[in-house]
Amino acid sequence: MIFDPDDMTPQGRYFLMIGAIVPRPIALVSTINADGKTNLAPFSFFNGLSSTPPILGVSVGTKRGKIKDTWRNAEETGEFVVNVVTESITDPMVQASADYPPEVSEFGAAGLTPIPSDLVAPPRVKESPVHFECRLEGIVELGDEEVTTGLLLGRIVRIHVDDEIIPDGTHIDPVRLKAVGRMGRHWYSRTRELFEKERPEV
Amino acid sequence: MIFDPDDMTPQGRYFLMIGAIVPRPIALVSTINADGKTNLAPFSFFNGLSSTPPILGVSVGTKRGKIKDTWRNAEETGEFVVNVVTESITDPMVQASADYPPEVSEFGAAGLTPIPSDLVAPPRVKESPVHFECRLEGIVELGDEEVTTGLLLGRIVRIHVDDEIIPDGTHIDPVRLKAVGRMGRHWYSRTRELFEKERPEV
Repeated sequence: MIFDPDDMTPQGRYFLMIGAIVPRPIALVSTINADGKTNLAPFSFFNGLSSTPPILGVSVGTKRGKIKDTWRNAEETGEFVVNVVTESITDPMVQASADYPPEVSEFGAAGLTPIPSDLVAPPRVKESPVHFECRLEGIVELGDEEVTTGLLLGRIVRIHVDDEIIPDGTHIDPVRLKAVGRMGRHWYSRTRELFEKERPEV
Repeated sequence: MIFDPDDMTPQGRYFLMIGAIVPRPIALVSTINADGKTNLAPFSFFNGLSSTPPILGVSVGTKRGKIKDTWRNAEETGEFVVNVVTESITDPMVQASADYPPEVSEFGAAGLTPIPSDLVAPPRVKESPVHFECRLEGIVELGDEEVTTGLLLGRIVRIHVDDEIIPDGTHIDPVRLKAVGRMGRHWYSRTRELFEKERPEV
């Protein structure tokens, strides 16, 4: 089948992209607003962009024409934290994706525990085994007539890794990490069916 | 354990990011240069960025201070194709990642078949079930003293989907797609251990 994005509905384009670009890593992003209120939300248009310098990117859309709390908070304070999503926190992560009113913190609603970060104001998620403390390096705005998406560029300033998942102190063990990837629609994938392939020499 | 990126080696930062930000979707990117020579290379700092407008991002680093062929070709011609990587083409995809000299096309070396695209000049990979034909919308350059990474922003102009994997014509079936995700080091993950979670109502 052939699809021309311009001839599709926004939802049709979205379904096709999230169904084909898989599996996606999930960033559970914590932010605070200028008043110190915390927010927590998952995003899967997320990835590392560069390791030197250490930059990651989280794409945050608009909702009914307004920028989402994560984007607004990151812009207001210049800081956010990316918490890695594993099997044991998939249910609370999904819970945090619900459309809560601004006065509700997703930490409480999802039953996740905020713990202080070292170098930035937004808290980390205690139940996640990896936290990236980030300073906002810039926002790449995307959209045609109007801006519909902000790609938040996060400069990683500190990384916390649970000792249990990094036995040699250098390489995270994927078997211990048990990360969960985002697929299309309501689907997720575990990362238990691992296999190894060496990059060949020429 | 706590890691400060500024105190780490480039390789140490890289290992930590690719081990923690998982599973990553894989873009097998085809390009041509100004002389019409084809290139094919896999990237996993890759994701959708926005569905309205339809934009994806592929992060391409430098190699020994020089920009890689994919970046140079995309910049020269303004076009590239993202081919989705599935179990059946994992071996050729890994083969295409080897460090071939410029005169070798990775299509031949990997045993993959180039077929013409409809709207852009770089060919598609016949053996892949999804192709995104893209026009280069811009390049976000990252780096401190010097540019070390280019995030290629691709405007999707046409999408080809194998009929077999999209039974209802709208949603790609993840069980039929059999996508493969990139993990840390030499690790990959299949996407067979799927589970479903509905986004909750508040």
